[in-house]
Amino acid sequence: MPAPLKVAILGCGVVGTQVARRLTEHADELASRVGTPLELVGIAVRDVAQPREGVTGTPLADLLTQDAESLVAGADVVVELMGGIEPARSLILRAIEGGASVVTANKALLAQDGPTLYAAADAAGVDLYFEAAVAGAIPIVRPVRESLAGDQVQRVLGIVNGTTNYVLDRMATDGLELEQAVKEAQTLGYAEADPTADVEGHDAAAKAAILASLAFHTRVALDDVACEGISAVTADDVAWAQRTGHTIKLLAIAERNAHDGVTGIQVRVHPALVPSDHPLAGVRGAFNAVFVEAEAAGELMFYGRGAGGAPTSSAVLGDLVSVARHRVLGGRGPVESSYAALPVLPALAARTRFQVRLAVEDRPGVLAQVAAALAEHGVSIEAVRQVAYPVPAGDGDALALLLITTHAAQESALAATVTALTDLDAVREVVSVLRVEGA
Amino acid sequence: MPAPLKVAILGCGVVGTQVARRLTEHADELASRVGTPLELVGIAVRDVAQPREGVTGTPLADLLTQDAESLVAGADVVVELMGGIEPARSLILRAIEGGASVVTANKALLAQDGPTLYAAADAAGVDLYFEAAVAGAIPIVRPVRESLAGDQVQRVLGIVNGTTNYVLDRMATDGLELEQAVKEAQTLGYAEADPTADVEGHDAAAKAAILASLAFHTRVALDDVACEGISAVTADDVAWAQRTGHTIKLLAIAERNAHDGVTGIQVRVHPALVPSDHPLAGVRGAFNAVFVEAEAAGELMFYGRGAGGAPTSSAVLGDLVSVARHRVLGGRGPVESSYAALPVLPALAARTRFQVRLAVEDRPGVLAQVAAALAEHGVSIEAVRQVAYPVPAGDGDALALLLITTHAAQESALAATVTALTDLDAVREVVSVLRVEGA
Repeated sequence: MPAPLKVAILGCGVVGTQVARRLTEHADELASRVGTPLELVGIAVRDVAQPREGVTGTPLADLLTQDAESLVAGADVVVELMGGIEPARSLILRAIEGGASVVTANKALLAQDGPTLYAAADAAGVDLYFEAAVAGAIPIVRPVRESLAGDQVQRVLGIVNGTTNYVLDRMATDGLELEQAVKEAQTLGYAEADPTADVEGHDAAAKAAILASLAFHTRVALDDVACEGISAVTADDVAWAQRTGHTIKLLAIAERNAHDGVTGIQVRVHPALVPSDHPLAGVRGAFNAVFVEAEAAGELMFYGRGAGGAPTSSAVLGDLVSVARHRVLGGRGPVESSYAALPVLPALAARTRFQVRLAVEDRPGVLAQVAAALAEHGVSIEAVRQVAYPVPAGDGDALALLLITTHAAQESALAATVTALTDLDAVREVVSVLRVEGA
Repeated sequence: MPAPLKVAILGCGVVGTQVARRLTEHADELASRVGTPLELVGIAVRDVAQPREGVTGTPLADLLTQDAESLVAGADVVVELMGGIEPARSLILRAIEGGASVVTANKALLAQDGPTLYAAADAAGVDLYFEAAVAGAIPIVRPVRESLAGDQVQRVLGIVNGTTNYVLDRMATDGLELEQAVKEAQTLGYAEADPTADVEGHDAAAKAAILASLAFHTRVALDDVACEGISAVTADDVAWAQRTGHTIKLLAIAERNAHDGVTGIQVRVHPALVPSDHPLAGVRGAFNAVFVEAEAAGELMFYGRGAGGAPTSSAVLGDLVSVARHRVLGGRGPVESSYAALPVLPALAARTRFQVRLAVEDRPGVLAQVAAALAEHGVSIEAVRQVAYPVPAGDGDALALLLITTHAAQESALAATVTALTDLDAVREVVSVLRVEGA
């Protein structure tokens, strides 16, 4: 059996601790899968004196070191689990330059600076694996990079943020308002004290950028992602979604599209109505799922836990076994090339169906006016439903609620239509505008 | 760039034709992913003169040959898509002995003789990939072999036969009886003229054997799989499943279990009640899905098309790119070892919850008798529901329907209980006994 491989872990939070423990507890099994033992040579932390659950008082404590640079210099495989941009970025680059293979779970870093890291790994001829950076334990990077290597992805729709999925699920099941559901998620540890990054879609946008890059072999930066969170979603929106056979989900979307004669990709994050019989609609609680439409494979979905110490450690260890096998047997994993280099289309190029709720005066002719406003902007109506407006109007006028579902329309046309509708006398309020996906 | 790789395809049915076409149409993209062009050197068929849609009259026709042996001898990669045991088995072994890498979609062969092929590939140091053999286009082999390489699988629940899933789905949505639904599936091309292999679960059992071998690193033969099809499932069973918040699915199950102090695995195929909020319950029509419970990763699900020319060709091409890359860059895919060598436990060792429907005399004391019969065999009741028997009894007695859901009980205990229930005077009929999974 070849010499053991030296494994260095950077960071000893929940995931780092789990990875270190599984490396120790399953040493024999891992050795038989890799072809040689994996020797954990150190765990870099900022402060070795800080007490750590599952580490302090165990043999793992002897592996802690504050000298990350020396640790990286002597390792065959570096597992980066510290998160954040620096010093993670510099340490990964140093590891790559030193010829080590790298496994990382750092989505923020990959979304911001992935292409630099991919290019460095490619130039050095080492592996850079990052399954845990997108959708936690769900194997999505490997299927997209390898299983679909002979296919062409058309569209990716992902529920990639467990916090917002939990919040929307609670709003749907118990009619909670957003604020209440977020508070509950915080109590249960699903949401941070400051939930902004989740609620406003920033976390999902980082994952969308990585997923889009992978699926379309194109460099997609975080700034390329049009991002809208769930902060404007009301209990009323959720209830109306259910009444019309839908579920509201925060989706990360990357799709091949044509705009002004140019074929490119369009990447965005926003809440969307998903038909209740669509596989994504059944993704409950804090679970994640990524739905992929490929030319030959058709519809695929990958479902599982998108976060948490144990699930993330599973993905990290799967990567670790892959890159370690390459060191033993030769060979390398797929290279993150951006050979397709498709243009990234502007957000206004997206084409989706929409559901618009309007509070209108309850009198003959209003629907005709509304329909004319839509037609004028080239937006075609699929269905209209008119009901008594649920909240009595203060001024005594009888109001009706118009629920309009459109055929696919360009984002820009819809925006113009909404402005036109707002200007109609008979329209008291554009109550809500939600995109419909997955139909 | 290295010399082109010679690719031989064995078989030119729907999948073979699709693979050949995609190899030609996407040649440049595939070359950039592999690192060298893939040159299709021939397609072996039994009769080159037979007209073939998509082949006859195209340049592919010139590649047809009846001399499979010579074709295999000159190839770097052999793609076996002829199906059946012979000559597929001999040709694959010849390819492996000649140093070629092999990609196959042949589930019957792998279920019957997989370990021989895996051992031959291992001895020759070549890749044997078979993503398309289990669940068609769904990437399940690669995630289980690679992504979960640092984890431990506890249980696999799969909907791996699209025909029966379509049939059960139609029974659920439109109340059809099995026979009607099967006829409809035949009309639509989802079921064969002789639907036995699907309806009786034989196809699912072959996939269960392969999945179990992969997930538990243990040699599982087709004979090790306890198999029960859906032929006894009635429209009434399906309706009662819905009334109690369940959906009936034909599941392929492989799980780690302990029996008489021995830890082993138990592999079986049978219809089961799945709670309606379980991700498997939402798998509609002819789709497939594999649900995996792993120690660290938790619950994962992989969903997609389990059959069809285009989807299967996607999986074959993904494998082809992987094994071709190994030939260019060195390295090898995971070896199908059965190092864990867990014992395969008998079917009677399975422990599941059950739902039993009994037609009983509608008089006091009957439930007590029934409950006593269950208790005597150590079967614990979770819930009982009693309703008027929907079909009036011919003999004029008032009958009631008892719907009993048990806690997890051993298969053998349940079998003994059913016999005891049948013997009770007050029990007119044991209408149905169905296992409950995924709860």
